[in-house]
Amino acid sequence: MATIFSGRVEALRGLMRENGWDIVIITGSDPHASEYPAPRWKQVEWLSGFTGEAGDLVITRDHAGLWTDTRYFIQAVRQLEGSGIVLHKMRVPEQVPIPEWIASLGLDSPVIAIDGLCQTMDAVDELRDAVPSAQIDAVPDLLSVLWADRPAVPSSPIITLGEDLAGESRETRINRLRKWLVLQGGDSILITSLDQIAWLLNVRGADVEYNPVVISYLLVTLDDVFWFVRKDVYADPDSETAASFQELQADGVTIQDYDDILFTLASLRVELSGVDSICIDPSTLSVALREAIEDGDLLPQIYEVDSPVALWKAVKNATEVDGMREAHVEDGLVMEQFLYWVSCHAGSVNEWEAACELGRLRAQVPGYRGDSFQTISAYGPSAALPHYITPASGSALLEPHGLYLVDSGGQYLFGTTDITRTVPLGPCTALEREDYTLVLKGHIDLAMAIFPRGTAGCQIDALAREPLWRTRRNFGHGTGHGVGFFLNVHEGPQDIRQNFNRQPLEPGMIISNEPGLYREGMHGIRHENLVLVRPVGDNEFGSFLGFETLTLCHIDTSCLDVALLTADERAWLNAYNAHVYDVLSPRLAPEVAAWLYDQTRPV
Amino acid sequence: MATIFSGRVEALRGLMRENGWDIVIITGSDPHASEYPAPRWKQVEWLSGFTGEAGDLVITRDHAGLWTDTRYFIQAVRQLEGSGIVLHKMRVPEQVPIPEWIASLGLDSPVIAIDGLCQTMDAVDELRDAVPSAQIDAVPDLLSVLWADRPAVPSSPIITLGEDLAGESRETRINRLRKWLVLQGGDSILITSLDQIAWLLNVRGADVEYNPVVISYLLVTLDDVFWFVRKDVYADPDSETAASFQELQADGVTIQDYDDILFTLASLRVELSGVDSICIDPSTLSVALREAIEDGDLLPQIYEVDSPVALWKAVKNATEVDGMREAHVEDGLVMEQFLYWVSCHAGSVNEWEAACELGRLRAQVPGYRGDSFQTISAYGPSAALPHYITPASGSALLEPHGLYLVDSGGQYLFGTTDITRTVPLGPCTALEREDYTLVLKGHIDLAMAIFPRGTAGCQIDALAREPLWRTRRNFGHGTGHGVGFFLNVHEGPQDIRQNFNRQPLEPGMIISNEPGLYREGMHGIRHENLVLVRPVGDNEFGSFLGFETLTLCHIDTSCLDVALLTADERAWLNAYNAHVYDVLSPRLAPEVAAWLYDQTRPV
Repeated sequence: MATIFSGRVEALRGLMRENGWDIVIITGSDPHASEYPAPRWKQVEWLSGFTGEAGDLVITRDHAGLWTDTRYFIQAVRQLEGSGIVLHKMRVPEQVPIPEWIASLGLDSPVIAIDGLCQTMDAVDELRDAVPSAQIDAVPDLLSVLWADRPAVPSSPIITLGEDLAGESRETRINRLRKWLVLQGGDSILITSLDQIAWLLNVRGADVEYNPVVISYLLVTLDDVFWFVRKDVYADPDSETAASFQELQADGVTIQDYDDILFTLASLRVELSGVDSICIDPSTLSVALREAIEDGDLLPQIYEVDSPVALWKAVKNATEVDGMREAHVEDGLVMEQFLYWVSCHAGSVNEWEAACELGRLRAQVPGYRGDSFQTISAYGPSAALPHYITPASGSALLEPHGLYLVDSGGQYLFGTTDITRTVPLGPCTALEREDYTLVLKGHIDLAMAIFPRGTAGCQIDALAREPLWRTRRNFGHGTGHGVGFFLNVHEGPQDIRQNFNRQPLEPGMIISNEPGLYREGMHGIRHENLVLVRPVGDNEFGSFLGFETLTLCHIDTSCLDVALLTADERAWLNAYNAHVYDVLSPRLAPEVAAWLYDQTRPV
Repeated sequence: MATIFSGRVEALRGLMRENGWDIVIITGSDPHASEYPAPRWKQVEWLSGFTGEAGDLVITRDHAGLWTDTRYFIQAVRQLEGSGIVLHKMRVPEQVPIPEWIASLGLDSPVIAIDGLCQTMDAVDELRDAVPSAQIDAVPDLLSVLWADRPAVPSSPIITLGEDLAGESRETRINRLRKWLVLQGGDSILITSLDQIAWLLNVRGADVEYNPVVISYLLVTLDDVFWFVRKDVYADPDSETAASFQELQADGVTIQDYDDILFTLASLRVELSGVDSICIDPSTLSVALREAIEDGDLLPQIYEVDSPVALWKAVKNATEVDGMREAHVEDGLVMEQFLYWVSCHAGSVNEWEAACELGRLRAQVPGYRGDSFQTISAYGPSAALPHYITPASGSALLEPHGLYLVDSGGQYLFGTTDITRTVPLGPCTALEREDYTLVLKGHIDLAMAIFPRGTAGCQIDALAREPLWRTRRNFGHGTGHGVGFFLNVHEGPQDIRQNFNRQPLEPGMIISNEPGLYREGMHGIRHENLVLVRPVGDNEFGSFLGFETLTLCHIDTSCLDVALLTADERAWLNAYNAHVYDVLSPRLAPEVAAWLYDQTRPV
């Protein structure tokens, strides 16, 4: 049974024969090493039909394989059917990553073609290490000749954020970067990460679904700032985007076309006097840009660095924190209205209808700019899949018993939210109650945690897991991810998970607190709030930090097994629910406020 | 005010002039990268008078410096007085490590002399990286020409352990190593770590104080085993050592002289047919041995590896575990007798007398082979120094109020112990009670911890600290260290501390659980038990591990603030104390058993 995808793979094989390529590797990322790519770079989906968020393809003359991880095995098998593409499993003990798999073919000096724009330096280095005899051809936009209706580079409207929202001008941020450059002894730095560019320039767009970024590159020298962006498509001088460009130009930012980046890098020292060196981040820089620098005239000194912007962006200033607090009040009002609505409609609506209602409520908030990710609206067994995608048709009914999980968030002009609530829709089983309570214990223990400055997330992750571990339970995802300020809902460099990430948690960082538990075919539970890292006191034993919970939405107590909570955990829960009621009830409709009063009675 | 030490430094400067050395580095370690060296290698102490456990000296023509860490600053200032040697502080934010300090001198191609036997490859590589122009002279036994009465390489009697004690024959262990060698594609491996050699050969000595090891090297090939040890001094054919040698020879071990190692390594491929490669561990191998291999005839292939023996040794077999359990029964009986004695003598004995009484009691245990480290017997403010050394004269009186801390351990033929108890000698302040209880909460929380297989110690360290952190308290040492089986009381590769050590805790590992709290001028508290890692169940969520507490000695409840304990913590404490009473009381004198009954009443 041939499919449109097997035809595309065959067409690619024709291209391989024409060009003498033995192997083609297609990755799921974009030229900016983004977690989520714009449609133009959904190359894996176009070629294979696989829509998971993590997947890479390898095509040889007689094999086609998709490499993805445990989260997507079932989905991959279904979506690859008939394509002739074979699933290669990652994050399993017997995994064989792509470089090792290619090495195992034992080919003599194979020619491997990659999309030079969508592969990082680091990935190519791994390939070279595994297959030293390989000749690697980095071909920008490799698939474009086959992909007739390939989407263009996106060019959504661009807005700017003033100091009233961002708390810091772009001039100040650029100057911080220049001071850093001087300390490194560098003359220029190339920034390719979209959220770093958005933060540095105080600009936002909508080029990637859920991520308010602008597809672009940024080159900062000690004297100039060059922003490479699709300026050609903004013809209307009266548009919001044109006004944004004018504001940026007035601040000394030169707007250049997105595609000019390759030429500029190749002629850096010729075109820009005084620029003899460039700082790049090999973990995110594409091979194509690296080669443009190296193959250009008058090779500059190249310094490989970790961009400092990731950390600066993660540490929110006072204005950003205020905005995030406001976003959580607005989002909390939405969530309480939604949960009230759910309590009224259990038994008569399905998962998709509930997700639509939540979206409708959020869209009414002034300053709402979209969701921060695709809402997970999952009843009972659906919630047992941590990355469940609610289908528009045929989704499960919210039955008036058991647990309903909803994980969602909003992008507002003044902040980003991400919240999960798991609520009983009627009677729950003893196991549901116990699981619900143990996950909540972990959530509360982490929320109450205090730790010395210098502590990394991996060093406190166990606090959220130990109540589950103690009863031989566990969950397979991270406990916490960084969250941007009206930016990506996933950001680094900090996290809270079972890894060895040395990045300390710093005051001003915002991170999720989201332990969970998943029982296949039964139920899934996750309790997620966002928390702000803040100082809680210095003394002879050190400087201590703790969390302030930003999310404002009550935690259901009706399916708690209260006996499992310690006195401290109970006190935290009662204080949290009382605080939620105090802040939100004055702005809720009387019937919702009355319902919330009842929901937040102390236990 | 010149001292004997300033004279020794001047004599060394004379040697430097003779040899054209600009700088001499003297380290505190031995040729085996031991944590504690035998007297022969206490070179730092001989040259400077400094007796701390961590310190390195750098002598230039016009500067002499000691590099040591926070633990020893006060001691170093006192001991260096009059020597002309300057303290360089490490583990402080502004620290300048030795390589960077030498680089900062800006010397052009300096000649740096080191003791080639007492510097590891890794340390020399760091020096080369920091001072690329340096010429490094690795001189074995550099100080010997100045140190007239330098102690010889030690040669205490050697005993062997049968399978009844070790649970595995040396033949089996050597074969495990050979199988590993084959998998690496290697022909031979050089083992230089003393505890690894003792474990592999099932031998024990007393060459290093508190550490039952034999100063030696071990070379294992696929066909032969060569043990380089001071065989020349064992003239008496009827001695225990001669019998041990005969047993080893019967098992195919060739005994060679300790000093022959350099010649053997230099002629490896000439002398040993079929041996074309050698595995070494650069983190512990001395430069002198490395150079012997590299400068010899017919250079073998050198593989740099982490010796697998460290991990094998850390994972105890069933016989070793049984022995450790027995050791903890015997040691528990000693500790209870001692604590009873302390309770009877508070107000009339001092710290030193108490330490002597404890040593006397331990020495009566059949199979006792010495202490596992120097007993810390510390009353009140003395205990606020985590590495307090009890002085033989002028030590503090155990007053009948406040807290007394005793940290001690024994080496027995069937196991090693390490225990700390902090006990009230009478009325305690509210702060003493609160500190005592919070440290105990951390101890109990870690003792009760359950975690998935694959978890490293640094990922659960916070469980022991959070009760202290929550009240803005902390302690500045690790929470847990590995403990050998009738071997070193400190062993790797596992630990439990605020680092990023990736070594998972494995079933069979034994590790200490010892949170503490120290208030300068007031009191110090530490509660330490040894725990065994063991499986506690597999299910759909994974394979889970937990701890079995091996140490058997009641925990005092009279100065507890019981209200600070959770119900689970209280239950653990009552069960532990009841278990201690049940196991030990039948073998205690009636008055001690009666006292223990009273001490272990549930709270």
